[in-house]
Amino acid sequence: MIPHADEAITRDGKSLILAYDHGLEHGPVDFEPNPATADPDRVFEIGTHSAVTAVAVQKGIAEAYYPAYEDEVTLLAKLNGTSNLWMGEPNSAVNWTVENAAEVGADAIGFTVYGGSNHEIEMVEEFRDAQEAAREHDLGVVMWSYPRGQGLKNATTPDTIAYSTRLGLELGADITKVKYPGSPEAMSHAVNMAADSKVVMSGGSKTDDQDFLSTVKSAMDAGADGLAVGRNVFQRDNPEQILDGLEAVIFEEASVKEALDVMGSEPTDPAALD
Amino acid sequence: MIPHADEAITRDGKSLILAYDHGLEHGPVDFEPNPATADPDRVFEIGTHSAVTAVAVQKGIAEAYYPAYEDEVTLLAKLNGTSNLWMGEPNSAVNWTVENAAEVGADAIGFTVYGGSNHEIEMVEEFRDAQEAAREHDLGVVMWSYPRGQGLKNATTPDTIAYSTRLGLELGADITKVKYPGSPEAMSHAVNMAADSKVVMSGGSKTDDQDFLSTVKSAMDAGADGLAVGRNVFQRDNPEQILDGLEAVIFEEASVKEALDVMGSEPTDPAALD
Amino acid sequence: MIPHADEAITRDGKSLILAYDHGLEHGPVDFEPNPATADPDRVFEIGTHSAVTAVAVQKGIAEAYYPAYEDEVTLLAKLNGTSNLWMGEPNSAVNWTVENAAEVGADAIGFTVYGGSNHEIEMVEEFRDAQEAAREHDLGVVMWSYPRGQGLKNATTPDTIAYSTRLGLELGADITKVKYPGSPEAMSHAVNMAADSKVVMSGGSKTDDQDFLSTVKSAMDAGADGLAVGRNVFQRDNPEQILDGLEAVIFEEASVKEALDVMGSEPTDPAALD
Amino acid sequence: MIPHADEAITRDGKSLILAYDHGLEHGPVDFEPNPATADPDRVFEIGTHSAVTAVAVQKGIAEAYYPAYEDEVTLLAKLNGTSNLWMGEPNSAVNWTVENAAEVGADAIGFTVYGGSNHEIEMVEEFRDAQEAAREHDLGVVMWSYPRGQGLKNATTPDTIAYSTRLGLELGADITKVKYPGSPEAMSHAVNMAADSKVVMSGGSKTDDQDFLSTVKSAMDAGADGLAVGRNVFQRDNPEQILDGLEAVIFEEASVKEALDVMGSEPTDPAALD
Amino acid sequence: MIPHADEAITRDGKSLILAYDHGLEHGPVDFEPNPATADPDRVFEIGTHSAVTAVAVQKGIAEAYYPAYEDEVTLLAKLNGTSNLWMGEPNSAVNWTVENAAEVGADAIGFTVYGGSNHEIEMVEEFRDAQEAAREHDLGVVMWSYPRGQGLKNATTPDTIAYSTRLGLELGADITKVKYPGSPEAMSHAVNMAADSKVVMSGGSKTDDQDFLSTVKSAMDAGADGLAVGRNVFQRDNPEQILDGLEAVIFEEASVKEALDVMGSEPTDPAALD
Repeated sequence: MIPHADEAITRDGKSLILAYDHGLEHGPVDFEPNPATADPDRVFEIGTHSAVTAVAVQKGIAEAYYPAYEDEVTLLAKLNGTSNLWMGEPNSAVNWTVENAAEVGADAIGFTVYGGSNHEIEMVEEFRDAQEAAREHDLGVVMWSYPRGQGLKNATTPDTIAYSTRLGLELGADITKVKYPGSPEAMSHAVNMAADSKVVMSGGSKTDDQDFLSTVKSAMDAGADGLAVGRNVFQRDNPEQILDGLEAVIFEEASVKEALDVMGSEPTDPAALD
Repeated sequence: MIPHADEAITRDGKSLILAYDHGLEHGPVDFEPNPATADPDRVFEIGTHSAVTAVAVQKGIAEAYYPAYEDEVTLLAKLNGTSNLWMGEPNSAVNWTVENAAEVGADAIGFTVYGGSNHEIEMVEEFRDAQEAAREHDLGVVMWSYPRGQGLKNATTPDTIAYSTRLGLELGADITKVKYPGSPEAMSHAVNMAADSKVVMSGGSKTDDQDFLSTVKSAMDAGADGLAVGRNVFQRDNPEQILDGLEAVIFEEASVKEALDVMGSEPTDPAALD
Repeated sequence: MIPHADEAITRDGKSLILAYDHGLEHGPVDFEPNPATADPDRVFEIGTHSAVTAVAVQKGIAEAYYPAYEDEVTLLAKLNGTSNLWMGEPNSAVNWTVENAAEVGADAIGFTVYGGSNHEIEMVEEFRDAQEAAREHDLGVVMWSYPRGQGLKNATTPDTIAYSTRLGLELGADITKVKYPGSPEAMSHAVNMAADSKVVMSGGSKTDDQDFLSTVKSAMDAGADGLAVGRNVFQRDNPEQILDGLEAVIFEEASVKEALDVMGSEPTDPAALD
Repeated sequence: MIPHADEAITRDGKSLILAYDHGLEHGPVDFEPNPATADPDRVFEIGTHSAVTAVAVQKGIAEAYYPAYEDEVTLLAKLNGTSNLWMGEPNSAVNWTVENAAEVGADAIGFTVYGGSNHEIEMVEEFRDAQEAAREHDLGVVMWSYPRGQGLKNATTPDTIAYSTRLGLELGADITKVKYPGSPEAMSHAVNMAADSKVVMSGGSKTDDQDFLSTVKSAMDAGADGLAVGRNVFQRDNPEQILDGLEAVIFEEASVKEALDVMGSEPTDPAALD
Repeated sequence: MIPHADEAITRDGKSLILAYDHGLEHGPVDFEPNPATADPDRVFEIGTHSAVTAVAVQKGIAEAYYPAYEDEVTLLAKLNGTSNLWMGEPNSAVNWTVENAAEVGADAIGFTVYGGSNHEIEMVEEFRDAQEAAREHDLGVVMWSYPRGQGLKNATTPDTIAYSTRLGLELGADITKVKYPGSPEAMSHAVNMAADSKVVMSGGSKTDDQDFLSTVKSAMDAGADGLAVGRNVFQRDNPEQILDGLEAVIFEEASVKEALDVMGSEPTDPAALD
């Protein structure tokens, strides 16, 4: 972590990263709930929402679509990733060099590390090269820190998530993206383990408005520095609407109730809002 | 994908790539139906047909024969490929560097990626290097996107082909070559998943004129941007004749009936033409 | 070993290296005895104690925190390391290049070698590159020489520790860090095998004041050139207090009794002090 | 293949390559029939015979002996090769770089590829680097194309040999060396598959004069461009004598009978000469 | 082999290389017979004996001790080597680059190759790089040619040793170090297989004066070009004394009896001296 290295992808120190590498990682099936989002133009358009501090995509999408949005969108170059056709121990191909990403106009890089995989050492060494090249190009560094593979029975226990954020700090990430560990206490612990480096929560699969905002709210209250989200935004009928709510919670310290109001969304469990 | 990066190998945005790497991939057996085509001179001669937007060959054939045809033929350098003597999990040797291909005069590169193979990650990283080097030399990039290997029972299901074209888009191909997924609907879906990048159908093994033109026509109607074909052209007694028909279907929006007329070929199933 | 190459991290030829890479190697669990030490600021503060000749950390912590302490702390860049999520044969990822470490301001590098591991050869070759790059940047070289893996039943026998220090000498370390081999005679033998290169004892897990100081004292009397210690300092309620005692033993030839007096610590086994 | 790239190692478009890497590939046992040939001086002396268009040796022999013969012998640098102590799947170490071979004075390189081996892909990629470096240094390229390994029951069937020559063409060899496939028809087919690139027959183990010349004659009549031979020359009592006969058959279109006459050698099966 | 490339480490064309990498290869146990020799200073001192043409050590020892002896000792940089903690198939880590060795002041390099090991190909390719770099720096090249590993039941048969010396010649060593093959005839055969390159006998484990000198004498009489010896010198109580005897046998054509006289050593089997 280098102070301010992440400034281009944060707003008041917080981030809302719109992740859109699902076409590679999961395949076209992720676009079925909202077929228009198979078109990167639609997602970059969503990315112009004021809540979004960066859009994370793979090289092919960046080189094709980013030039048209470079004044309105901040590019986070997701450097590695692998199709789910891959049947081996968790691993991720490096699809993009930092040099090329910088030329395309990225302000930060994103890199997945699967701690605990039999490929952990190889991935960490690839991260080293990317991280040091990012420093040379003055790009921020975001680690997707997702322990998985041989020996990990449950990858979202509090201990594992706390270890995940610590890996980000020790290895040189400015921001580390982790799964929500299930409770505010566990999130708070994970945030502490990251020390001065930042932690953003992973958005995960689609949930209802109140549930999603409540989880984000509790992560923020526990000290998280924002959110990296894909499906929970673009699989909705109205992605901009949930971004309104997320903006309120993440950047304006709104309550979940206030955020639902901003969205014009009915609570599904009104009692939980008190 | 970079807009217009494929211009040298397209005509009105569409391509007919004459692929001729079968001597490496399948061996001499593929030349038996038309023995004259074992001689690259014959195939480059076919490649001068106005329907052909590029000829795809391996390095050895390019360096020996392309110089004599450089004014009449556009060279697509097929960079990787492997003999069928190889008994291991699907993989493809990188036989040619982009730098050398550019010196020989190529206007685009071709690269095979076997998604789902145990060598997927290695192949995708080799593709990264080739793709980025191609950008430096202003060469178009065509991916042969052929999922196969451990875990793939059927490599031509609609879902697999849609994933195949998406891989091309996400990883940075200008044009992605895929097998025909069996129906116009599936082809249309695959084309949508490629967004602004292009999709060409693979010609496959030799079929009769009407069958072949009908499949190409339905692919074009479903939004495909052309064809990459080898055996279905050079294994015929009269390769130029089928190119006349393909030119009509691909570039002139002809019906199959009109294309067969241009060729002077009798329909084998006249009823299907109505 | 090059004479004086380790001067920046020694004082009168002796070292007390404060090691703080436990967040990577062991995870957050190592900070539980003294939670404040999860914060690198606290540990760098401890590192300003006059007893400490260098602080050993991973890249991410160095780039974030070292700049604020560069006038008061000497940086030892621990280049490799691996999480304990790793289930494979002992190995260590190279997380940091010498070039970057030199830019961040390191005065020496630290590198783990697991002799006897199935990855021994790979690790030794990575050490070669780091060692030679360190020579070019005039950085001292410290080897963590820890035989383990296939074939090693007991990694702390006198023979193994003597071999460990010899590996440091033969491969080009200025200082070799080894586990205490259990007796002064064994330590003395290990020190002899290092010839003119230096040997520091590894601090190990937390023990009581008298026990710890006694072991350090016996190592120093056996010819060791100091200590590399983490948990036995930062897991205590008062890390500075034990550093007072260690300073007395290591740099001032104090007896254990004198060191305990300096610390204001009661002996747990007064009879052993005679 | 590049036209004329092989000129330095051909005479009227044909070659007789004296191969002498048996000390590496087979060991000293190959010198037992004619012990004097363990001495490279003896073999370079044989290589000054007017029939020989190039001598193929490994680096160590070239750097020691070639300087004394550079006016009389053309050097073909055999870049890879492996001892028969190797028990693994067929593979060949790259013992010599093209850059060094060019400095030593080579006019061409030789490279073994074992199609069908589990190391095929690695070998073909090593060939790529050597071939492209050879182009930069204007050296001819000869491939020893020897399918073997997992999955190949019989490596000298007509189909396999035809595939072997095609691999040479597709991958960029100027000349491909293959085993004799057993009949003139099969040899002719293999020659056709090489198109404009050249094919030389491998000499194999020692046979009698008439048998050997007859096989060479039938290969030449089938379109082969010469011979690469070791044991069948240097294991004889009089290597120069058989070279006289080979020169007649290969370069002077002599019949086997005429060649035997030139040699002063009695036919072993006179009836077969009619 | 390049004529005269080994001049710096020979005297009248012959060598006595004092090998001292046992601390790495075997561990401290090899110093037990003469504990003073754990100290490299003592061994460099022995290396100033007029019989010694070069001292072979690893990088760490060279950089620490050679500067003080550079006027009296010739440095042979042993580039690779592995601890005996290693349990895998025979292999050797490359611990030192040629560039660094040249800077430290080496006049030649030493490199182990285990023919027949599953790592043979990798080792031979590492040797290639070292050998070619040595040529650029005008350093002599010595190969420790020690077949071992899978498939070798007896690594010191005459055939294996003859193959060993041939590997040195073919791959480009100036001097090849091999085990004594058991008889003068076998040694003579091995020497012949090395042609103009040189062969030195490996000293092996400690034997009595007469036995050792007799073996060296018979190797020299069989055409060997000297000796590379470690334990048989430094494990003795008086290493200089045996060097007096070896000098007589190797450089002065003395008989064993004369050599024992020079040493002032009693024969253990006087009858064998006649």
